[in-house]
Amino acid sequence: MTQFSSQNGELLIAGKTVSQVVQIAGQTPCYVYDKAVIKANVERLRHFFPDISLHYAIKANPFSPLVCYVSDLVDGLDVASGKELAIALATSTDTNNLSFAGPGKSLQELTMALASGITINVESATELQRIADLSSSLDLEAKVALRLNPDFELKSSGMKMGGGSQQFGIDVEQLNDVMDILQHQKLELRGLHIFTGSQNLRPESIISAHNNIFALVERLIEQYQLKLTHLNIGGGFGIPYFTGDSELDLEPIANNLKKLRQDYSNTFEQCEIILELGRYLVGNAGIYLCEVTDTKISRGKRFLVTNGGLHHHLAASGNFGQVIRKNYPLAVVNKMDANELESVDVVGPLCTPLDILGGNVELPPAEIGDIIGVYQSGAYGFSASPRDFLSHPHPVQLLL
Amino acid sequence: MTQFSSQNGELLIAGKTVSQVVQIAGQTPCYVYDKAVIKANVERLRHFFPDISLHYAIKANPFSPLVCYVSDLVDGLDVASGKELAIALATSTDTNNLSFAGPGKSLQELTMALASGITINVESATELQRIADLSSSLDLEAKVALRLNPDFELKSSGMKMGGGSQQFGIDVEQLNDVMDILQHQKLELRGLHIFTGSQNLRPESIISAHNNIFALVERLIEQYQLKLTHLNIGGGFGIPYFTGDSELDLEPIANNLKKLRQDYSNTFEQCEIILELGRYLVGNAGIYLCEVTDTKISRGKRFLVTNGGLHHHLAASGNFGQVIRKNYPLAVVNKMDANELESVDVVGPLCTPLDILGGNVELPPAEIGDIIGVYQSGAYGFSASPRDFLSHPHPVQLLL
Repeated sequence: MTQFSSQNGELLIAGKTVSQVVQIAGQTPCYVYDKAVIKANVERLRHFFPDISLHYAIKANPFSPLVCYVSDLVDGLDVASGKELAIALATSTDTNNLSFAGPGKSLQELTMALASGITINVESATELQRIADLSSSLDLEAKVALRLNPDFELKSSGMKMGGGSQQFGIDVEQLNDVMDILQHQKLELRGLHIFTGSQNLRPESIISAHNNIFALVERLIEQYQLKLTHLNIGGGFGIPYFTGDSELDLEPIANNLKKLRQDYSNTFEQCEIILELGRYLVGNAGIYLCEVTDTKISRGKRFLVTNGGLHHHLAASGNFGQVIRKNYPLAVVNKMDANELESVDVVGPLCTPLDILGGNVELPPAEIGDIIGVYQSGAYGFSASPRDFLSHPHPVQLLL
Repeated sequence: MTQFSSQNGELLIAGKTVSQVVQIAGQTPCYVYDKAVIKANVERLRHFFPDISLHYAIKANPFSPLVCYVSDLVDGLDVASGKELAIALATSTDTNNLSFAGPGKSLQELTMALASGITINVESATELQRIADLSSSLDLEAKVALRLNPDFELKSSGMKMGGGSQQFGIDVEQLNDVMDILQHQKLELRGLHIFTGSQNLRPESIISAHNNIFALVERLIEQYQLKLTHLNIGGGFGIPYFTGDSELDLEPIANNLKKLRQDYSNTFEQCEIILELGRYLVGNAGIYLCEVTDTKISRGKRFLVTNGGLHHHLAASGNFGQVIRKNYPLAVVNKMDANELESVDVVGPLCTPLDILGGNVELPPAEIGDIIGVYQSGAYGFSASPRDFLSHPHPVQLLL
C-alpha cells in the first residue's frame, strides 16, 4: 500500500511510527485516519475534475473530526440520517451544500431537513407529498431534488444501486406523477441525483454511466422544462482491496466528463455538476491496528490470535456483502522490513469461526505483542461493524 | 411460527397484541423477547435431559434483563468477555457455575476471572501459563478447565468449531505439554470443555459428536489420571430459520446421552455433564418489529420500505456467515388473518442494496404503518448488528 511509507521497519502513519500511534491511541485496537492521505485524494480529484464539485458522503465514515476535516476540503456533504445531518451541521459547510438522501426518511428527519434548510433528495412520490405537507404545516421552504432510478445500470459495480427494480429513487418512467405533485404543491425542483452504484474499478463502466446520465438528464430537462441548479452524478469510484485490484484510472473518466460538459454545454451551463464520493475520499486513509495476543499451531496451521476482529471490522472479516471471502491487505506493521514470510490465519477473540481477519495470508513471523494493520479501512469500518458483539472493548479512533 | 399465537389478526407476544407491544416499546423498531417461550424451551430441555446441567451462553443475547431471567431457570452461565462476566456476576448464578471461554483473553479479563472466582476455559498453553503467573502474583486461586479441540468434527453444523485446525481450544494431541504446565504450576484441572459447532438440526450428527466426546474424554481421564468435576459437552442445538428447516428432534439425542451415561457410569459418576446452549434457549423467543414507512413499485416489483434493517438485524439481512442469502421467517404481524398474498421485497432505510430483510417474500398486502415481524430473532440479533451504520436510531429491547 503506497499511501504509507515505513522507517526502520515500522509503518509511518501521519509521519509517526506505528508504535507512537498506538501510544497516542492509548490502546489497541484502534482505527487511525491520516489527514495527508485524505488531502492527497482530494487534490488528485481536483486535478482531474477542476470544474466539478466534490461532495463527501458521510456514511462512508461519520467520525466527527474526520467529517470536519473533509468538509474544509470539499464543496458539500451528503447525509443519510438525522444524526449524520447533526454531524454535518457542525462543520464549515454551508447548508446550501448539504443534501439528505435515503429511502424511508422519518417525519422527524424530514422536519430536521426542512428546519435546517438543506436539500432533500426525494426517494418516492409518497416522500415528496410528505415534504409538501410538512413544508406547508411548518411554514418552512423545501429545497427539493429528485433521486432518480435510471433505466440503465452501472456495470461491474461492487453494488448496483440504479437500474432495474430498486428501493432507491424514483423510476424515470414515473416522473410524470412526481412532476404533478411538484407543480400542484408549488415546490421548486432544484436538482437531480442519479447514483448508480459503488466500488467500481473499471473506468469504462463509469464513463458509460456518465454518458447515460447526461443523455437522460438532457431528455428530462427538455421534456419537463426543468431549471436545475445542480446535478449529482453520484460516485461509484472504487479503491483496490484485493489481490488483482488496481487503482482506478481517473484520467479517462475526467476526459470523458470534460467532453460531456462541452457536448452538453447549452443544457448544463447554469448547472453545478457534483461528484458524491465516500469511500474514494477516505478509504485508503484509514488503517485498523490490533495486537497479537496469542499464537498457536493447530494441526500444522499457525494462528495469530489478536484483540481485534469481526466485531470491529466486519468488512475485513468478509461478512459485508462479499459472496466469497477475500483478505483485506494486511501487514505486521512493526516488522515492515522482514523478508521471511509464513502462511498464517489472523483471527480475533470471538467464539465464532467467522472472526477472521486473514485466512492463509503470507506475513512475516509474528509474535505476541506485534501489531497487525488492516489497510483500506477508512470507509465502512468502525461505523459498519457490530461493535457490541460479545461485548469486547470498542476500538479508539484517531485522526492524525 | 408456533411459539406465538394471534388474536383478531394481531400477533400475540407475551399475551399482548403487537399493537400494545409497540406502545409499550414506545417506538418501532424494537426487539421483543417473550419470557414464556424461553421458559418453555428450558422445560422441554429439562424433560429430555433431566440429569444434565444446562448452561446459558450469554453471547447469544447479552440483554441484561434477559440474562437475569434465564439465569434463574438454568444451572450456569458461560461468558465470552469481561463485560459479559460483569453481566453474569449481577445475576443469581453462583460463581461456581460461571465459566469464561474464548481465544486471546486479555490480562484484564483473566484478572477479572481470577478475582471473581469463576472457571476459566483455557484456550492455549500460553493462556494457561498466563493464568498460573497471574494466580501466583495476585495470590488468587485459579479454577481451570481446558477447552479441547478434538480430533473429530461435528458434521452438518452451521459453524464448525472443533476438529481440524482451529483457533479454539487445545488440540488433544498437545495435551502432554499442557499437563506438564498444570503439574508444574500446581494448578488443579477441574473440567473439560469440548465445543464442536453450532446451529445443527441433525440429531445423528449431534449423537455422533456426543459419542466421540465421551470416548475421547474417557481415554484422556485414563491417560492423565484426571479427576473432573465437570464436562461441558457444548451445545450446537439448532433452531429452524429457513424454508425446509424443521425443529430439532431432542428425543434421540436424549436417549443416546442416557445410554452414554450408563455405558460410562464408572468414569463419569462424580462428573457433572453440562450442555451449554445459547441460540436454542432464546432464539425463538425473540421477534424484531419494524414499521412500513413507504411502499413503492419499481419496474413491476413492490418494495416495502421499513424503519428497520441490516443495521439492527445483520443476520436477517444475510450478512452474517451465510453464503447464500435466505429469508428469515417474516410476517405482517398486524394482519395475521389475511388470506391474500403478494410477492414483495422488504427493505430498510440504508443507502445500500445489502439492506434487505426479505427478498421476494410472500406477504399480505401491507401499507404504510403496518408492522413487519422478523421471527427467530432472540439470538445474535441486536448485539450482533452494526447499529451505528448510517447513524439511525437504535431499536428498543423489551423482555415481556
